[in-house]
Amino acid sequence: MEDLTEKTLGAERKFTGRLIAVDVLDVALPDGRRATREVVRHGPAVAVLARRPDGLFVFVRQFRVPAGEALVEAIAGGLEPGESPEEGARRETAEETGYEVRSLAPLLTTICTPGYCDERIHLFFAELAPAPGEGRQDADENVRTVLLSEAQVDAAVRAGTLVDAKTLAAWACFKLR
Amino acid sequence: MEDLTEKTLGAERKFTGRLIAVDVLDVALPDGRRATREVVRHGPAVAVLARRPDGLFVFVRQFRVPAGEALVEAIAGGLEPGESPEEGARRETAEETGYEVRSLAPLLTTICTPGYCDERIHLFFAELAPAPGEGRQDADENVRTVLLSEAQVDAAVRAGTLVDAKTLAAWACFKLR
Repeated sequence: MEDLTEKTLGAERKFTGRLIAVDVLDVALPDGRRATREVVRHGPAVAVLARRPDGLFVFVRQFRVPAGEALVEAIAGGLEPGESPEEGARRETAEETGYEVRSLAPLLTTICTPGYCDERIHLFFAELAPAPGEGRQDADENVRTVLLSEAQVDAAVRAGTLVDAKTLAAWACFKLR
Repeated sequence: MEDLTEKTLGAERKFTGRLIAVDVLDVALPDGRRATREVVRHGPAVAVLARRPDGLFVFVRQFRVPAGEALVEAIAGGLEPGESPEEGARRETAEETGYEVRSLAPLLTTICTPGYCDERIHLFFAELAPAPGEGRQDADENVRTVLLSEAQVDAAVRAGTLVDAKTLAAWACFKLR
């Protein structure tokens, strides 16, 4: 295939936050012309499509300030330093929902917004224990568990009410397994 | 359902670019505690899962600096001022691939990264003309057309080689239509 590589010639850090940073890159296009690219830097994350032995999927509902509303999403969160994606998937599931992961299978690693952000989310399918223990959420998280059958998730996708892209991406992978 | 609303008390603009901006928000949690939220501001966009009369899907391949590689994705781009999602879907399809849209159906509006970015992408399914005219790409875009059958897309999802979340989200919607 044709080489479309854009070579990065320089980068300037424009913002450093707690969760993200922003760089403006000077790149050389394949034909030698120059362009700038704004890139949000975000650490790797995991998302977990989790199912109980009774067939119900465990999602989380939380308020998302950028969306202006509470959304139902797959269990998800950023990896901690030195943590493997598998470890992160088990930890986030326990923290956000209290459920123990019995088995874990990788689905796919997605890039949510490849035009301007480098975040990669490792998607997993997890089989859970039948009932939750006690979750341990971050101090500024308010996450609630939502149980949905496979038919209910399909219906939510068709109705356009399940809108989070990583969750839809995981669902596409799950349905094609 | 329980009200999980986080009320925005103030916002400070930290970065203004050509494509994105970054705000840091001071929010009140439902229990009255305070937290900060970093929010990337990005205009609305469209993505188009496009199929020719012969059943082949028209995707685009382009180098994505944040990903460090060329990715195969659904046709996509930002809306222009005053443009409707339907108009944007037709324009982006023509610009990126040269194909004329014969019919257009909305799939779902996705939020790619609701934790830190407000971008909404209107996903469409388009039936195309059988052959392309001439595309008119932006000056700094190098976009190539990729034709895949439905079985090839399914196989790419299973193999983990189709990684773009909006494309996977559109595929989930398409498969459940």
